[in-house]
Amino acid sequence: MTANNPPNAPLVGLVMGSESDKPLMLEGAAALESLGVPYEMTIASAHRSPELARAYAQSAKDRGLKVLIAGAGYAAHLAGVLAAYTILPVIGVPLASSPLSGLDSLLATVMMPSGVPVATVAIGGAKNAAYLAAQILALADPVLAQKLIDYKAKLAQEVAAKAASLSPRDHA
Amino acid sequence: MTANNPPNAPLVGLVMGSESDKPLMLEGAAALESLGVPYEMTIASAHRSPELARAYAQSAKDRGLKVLIAGAGYAAHLAGVLAAYTILPVIGVPLASSPLSGLDSLLATVMMPSGVPVATVAIGGAKNAAYLAAQILALADPVLAQKLIDYKAKLAQEVAAKAASLSPRDHA
Amino acid sequence: MTANNPPNAPLVGLVMGSESDKPLMLEGAAALESLGVPYEMTIASAHRSPELARAYAQSAKDRGLKVLIAGAGYAAHLAGVLAAYTILPVIGVPLASSPLSGLDSLLATVMMPSGVPVATVAIGGAKNAAYLAAQILALADPVLAQKLIDYKAKLAQEVAAKAASLSPRDHA
Amino acid sequence: MTANNPPNAPLVGLVMGSESDKPLMLEGAAALESLGVPYEMTIASAHRSPELARAYAQSAKDRGLKVLIAGAGYAAHLAGVLAAYTILPVIGVPLASSPLSGLDSLLATVMMPSGVPVATVAIGGAKNAAYLAAQILALADPVLAQKLIDYKAKLAQEVAAKAASLSPRDHA
Amino acid sequence: MTANNPPNAPLVGLVMGSESDKPLMLEGAAALESLGVPYEMTIASAHRSPELARAYAQSAKDRGLKVLIAGAGYAAHLAGVLAAYTILPVIGVPLASSPLSGLDSLLATVMMPSGVPVATVAIGGAKNAAYLAAQILALADPVLAQKLIDYKAKLAQEVAAKAASLSPRDHA
Amino acid sequence: MTANNPPNAPLVGLVMGSESDKPLMLEGAAALESLGVPYEMTIASAHRSPELARAYAQSAKDRGLKVLIAGAGYAAHLAGVLAAYTILPVIGVPLASSPLSGLDSLLATVMMPSGVPVATVAIGGAKNAAYLAAQILALADPVLAQKLIDYKAKLAQEVAAKAASLSPRDHA
Amino acid sequence: MTANNPPNAPLVGLVMGSESDKPLMLEGAAALESLGVPYEMTIASAHRSPELARAYAQSAKDRGLKVLIAGAGYAAHLAGVLAAYTILPVIGVPLASSPLSGLDSLLATVMMPSGVPVATVAIGGAKNAAYLAAQILALADPVLAQKLIDYKAKLAQEVAAKAASLSPRDHA
Amino acid sequence: MTANNPPNAPLVGLVMGSESDKPLMLEGAAALESLGVPYEMTIASAHRSPELARAYAQSAKDRGLKVLIAGAGYAAHLAGVLAAYTILPVIGVPLASSPLSGLDSLLATVMMPSGVPVATVAIGGAKNAAYLAAQILALADPVLAQKLIDYKAKLAQEVAAKAASLSPRDHA
Repeated sequence: MTANNPPNAPLVGLVMGSESDKPLMLEGAAALESLGVPYEMTIASAHRSPELARAYAQSAKDRGLKVLIAGAGYAAHLAGVLAAYTILPVIGVPLASSPLSGLDSLLATVMMPSGVPVATVAIGGAKNAAYLAAQILALADPVLAQKLIDYKAKLAQEVAAKAASLSPRDHA
Repeated sequence: MTANNPPNAPLVGLVMGSESDKPLMLEGAAALESLGVPYEMTIASAHRSPELARAYAQSAKDRGLKVLIAGAGYAAHLAGVLAAYTILPVIGVPLASSPLSGLDSLLATVMMPSGVPVATVAIGGAKNAAYLAAQILALADPVLAQKLIDYKAKLAQEVAAKAASLSPRDHA
Repeated sequence: MTANNPPNAPLVGLVMGSESDKPLMLEGAAALESLGVPYEMTIASAHRSPELARAYAQSAKDRGLKVLIAGAGYAAHLAGVLAAYTILPVIGVPLASSPLSGLDSLLATVMMPSGVPVATVAIGGAKNAAYLAAQILALADPVLAQKLIDYKAKLAQEVAAKAASLSPRDHA
Repeated sequence: MTANNPPNAPLVGLVMGSESDKPLMLEGAAALESLGVPYEMTIASAHRSPELARAYAQSAKDRGLKVLIAGAGYAAHLAGVLAAYTILPVIGVPLASSPLSGLDSLLATVMMPSGVPVATVAIGGAKNAAYLAAQILALADPVLAQKLIDYKAKLAQEVAAKAASLSPRDHA
Repeated sequence: MTANNPPNAPLVGLVMGSESDKPLMLEGAAALESLGVPYEMTIASAHRSPELARAYAQSAKDRGLKVLIAGAGYAAHLAGVLAAYTILPVIGVPLASSPLSGLDSLLATVMMPSGVPVATVAIGGAKNAAYLAAQILALADPVLAQKLIDYKAKLAQEVAAKAASLSPRDHA
Repeated sequence: MTANNPPNAPLVGLVMGSESDKPLMLEGAAALESLGVPYEMTIASAHRSPELARAYAQSAKDRGLKVLIAGAGYAAHLAGVLAAYTILPVIGVPLASSPLSGLDSLLATVMMPSGVPVATVAIGGAKNAAYLAAQILALADPVLAQKLIDYKAKLAQEVAAKAASLSPRDHA
Repeated sequence: MTANNPPNAPLVGLVMGSESDKPLMLEGAAALESLGVPYEMTIASAHRSPELARAYAQSAKDRGLKVLIAGAGYAAHLAGVLAAYTILPVIGVPLASSPLSGLDSLLATVMMPSGVPVATVAIGGAKNAAYLAAQILALADPVLAQKLIDYKAKLAQEVAAKAASLSPRDHA
Repeated sequence: MTANNPPNAPLVGLVMGSESDKPLMLEGAAALESLGVPYEMTIASAHRSPELARAYAQSAKDRGLKVLIAGAGYAAHLAGVLAAYTILPVIGVPLASSPLSGLDSLLATVMMPSGVPVATVAIGGAKNAAYLAAQILALADPVLAQKLIDYKAKLAQEVAAKAASLSPRDHA
């Protein structure tokens, strides 16, 4: 995609704050794979391993990554901490792991102060984070752009097909 | 920036749902200007002028736009509607124009269903929407990337300067 | 019901944003059937199939529909999008499909800006949406009005009967 | 509009829970007037004058009213109480008069139990309540329907005009 | 308790908005029984059987009742409606039967406008409603007052006993 | 009212957590005065003067008080602390003095655990607390009961009078 | 640790408002044990056994305790009541035992008025309360400080180890 | 206070995320001064100057600081970031600078994941943060402990004095 990247070098860095977030974040990984977007995945807690998170963000651009996706729960600082250390776009995925159903992680992720944005998706929206990352990468990748156009068409077709298949009973 | 764009052709489309949102959205415009990112600005309501919003989103990519920023209040559907009609990244800015202080527009903007993401920033975060747009554009624009690196450094220097200038009384 | 409608032509268009909403929306369909209100049911996502939703709303009045009912979860834009494209009354049913228990879909449905109302019922209130649709249709249909009067009486009788059947133990 | 109604007999009953709600509810009245919808306006508290509210709802249909609009704040029961006593469609307008900015009145208005719907609009949405009432009445009134179609067109034109008039500075 | 009441005539009227509230409201009934407070129990919906609710409240004082307890969920208007029709103290029990976990019923119960109070207890607090009713009745009933004093002492003793019985492991 | 109380001995103890709560709590005092209910007023913080609060509650019953009203803001523990030390009914008035507009004080006041109820009124509802106290006292005071009946009638008459005085313009 | 404390005399008093809180509070106890911090554990309800809670707080400092940890649910007053009676640091653990998922206990614990702070940790954060207590004690205990430094390093190592052990499939 | 600290060397590090937080944080500084607790004050944003924040936290213990106080608004990560880099107790002060009145900063500050606690005080509670810091320092400083005991007594006396000075009118 860029000259200094070997084929299949990861373009998206998918980071989760805790190993327990893996099942959900794998949905994002699967979406990236379905679009053929090379990615890497790691664990780095903003609080328990701050140096890891910081080092990851600081080296991300030089290592060829284009977009970071950060999923975390509770007072979800991971996306914000990554954004503090890189100019790469950082997508935040608030996770509903606390008793407050993700309202805490949503607010902790999205309400960033001026100068350091986090592109926040829905609570639990790892899959949408992947599509958003792909939309960003597609700006410089016509093949990926076409895949997204096709995906958008497929979404609409699926809805139409499901509408058509509503049983007679469903139609009264 | 790309071959098929004339110099200064707008790369960011800044859309607001109502004329009353202009003062806040101009903060985003100012941030884009400060980074030299060409943009255009318009008004298109998801509810009062849906055709306008749809046409805008559908034509955005072909007109050379790379990123859309949509600011709206109340049941803020503008960003979601744009995202439904384009594969460009859409940044949503929830505005605090209703009695609920923007909680309604935040949830209406960020809680997008699977397949159609909106990159949501903080309530009232038009400025951050601009920086996020610039971060996305900078992936293909080293000059802009350097500006963002400089801006990040300046942010830190400003904090340090303000810390240094705390009056003796402030230091006890 | 009106001269230009064949008997049993649907008067209510029941739209859901996703196939997963069907079990709940069928409660609304059952309520319409119990009142003898002809309806049709379809799936049309405001985000995944926006053209479908738009075309549905734009053609609804000419096809003889009188009231639209739209059920959706998360950032529930479906009712608002339909209302943007038709002057028929649109009833919105916020669904509790996200981690926020429907607070997101309630606010995204009800907090519509000036000029484009959505008649919102309770979270999960598909059944009440059906009764509301019937109340609207009954303005021009005395037979249906009588059914609603009877239904209201039956509701009260059922409560009275249940009160009467409280066991002695229940009465201390 | 119907044979047993003299010309200009009120079709909409606009009820407010307290005299202090008048300034806001007058916005709804003005919207009805702009569309030529005859209405009446009164005050009837669900809690301080329950008999008045009940008598009003019970007689509304026989007096030729077609739609009731009820605006109230705090634990806003007015719309629900009216709906308990009539089969006319009742539109609820939650008002932001309490310290909770209308979240209390929104929930008290919209979360109606099964069997007794209230068509709820946005907090403070008296104007939208009027448009919703007009949409309902327009089902049997082609002239009013045309007015709503024109109004919808005007809304879109106003947005387009405002978009066109953004100053050069606004366009960067 | 008062001259015009036969022995064991009910002093507390325990009203629930729906039969489905019975299991929880029986906790309140059990608490009343444990204190020897005679009560009656009925079902009366503010919305589905408004006349029943109104008649119940209007006749309550003359029938010798001293305190009403009303439990309801969703837009819980029952306590407010009873309070509108009687000067007896009305205790409201918000129930968590809706997707919003009782926040809706709490606000609909407690945020009463000036002039018509409802004595609101915790979400699901039927038992506490019973104790509150007993505290009110005890003002004129020294025997009941003593029972409440004993109950208060027992509560403290139970806590102390449980504290004492923490296992050695529990004490480290 | 009872033999061991001199005439005009206070029956209601009106306690506020802070001197800054006085303007609001005086509304409650005024309401008590208008009904001729003798009361006393004091300041006692659950946190800053816990012994004062405790001593007040412990001695309240013996000093002839019948009902306590406690108004407090923030983590409003005052009503709960009083209720912990007395079997008198305690009415809690959550005050909106914190940035959270009283949601904090409402929850801290009303969500009492089993065994120790607080009769909570609306945020800022000092006046309603007074009426609730009067309703409780009226159970043993027919003169006061009649005053409350008259007050209830006056409330309804005032609403009717205001409805009647809506200007012709108001009636369209 | 200090001269007037026998070895292993408890330094932390872990108090819960109800026996049902024990499973969660034992997580805090386990964390204290893992760090070798001697503690005691008891039950004392702010509402059901206020004298116990008060006596506990008043004697805590003289009995050699350094830090109190208080866990409670609903309108969680326990930490605040302890803080009212002692100058020892009091750590509050809001518990999610009510239908509101701990939002009530969080606000009731953290929103303390000026002059009487409670050091509040996350909803359900008994373990973090223990670490916070240890951090406070470590100010005067270099051995404990080293344990905390080691613990912090271990946390980071665990994250790194888990990141390293992500399966190849996880890495795509 | 400890041997390796020169007299008046700061023991508390008061950090604010933005210069605009200074007026509020100075209330905390004033409280520390009134108790004779030496402190230093600085500005360090978790997002705009992450290295500054990190360096501050990492060096804090070696520079003789005992407690950190961090005040920040919006997605308030400052306290959490400091806590990630030090074992000193970190007190978080959520500030109400965003449209959400501090609910965002409260949740972002308090809902820390396991292993890294932040001692959170009320929204806007800079003064209480200072008292909490003093309570922690007082564990090793009998003079300071006595000051806190005196302060606690003064708080109670002030309440008593204000209660006594309620005007006769206030007492009815």
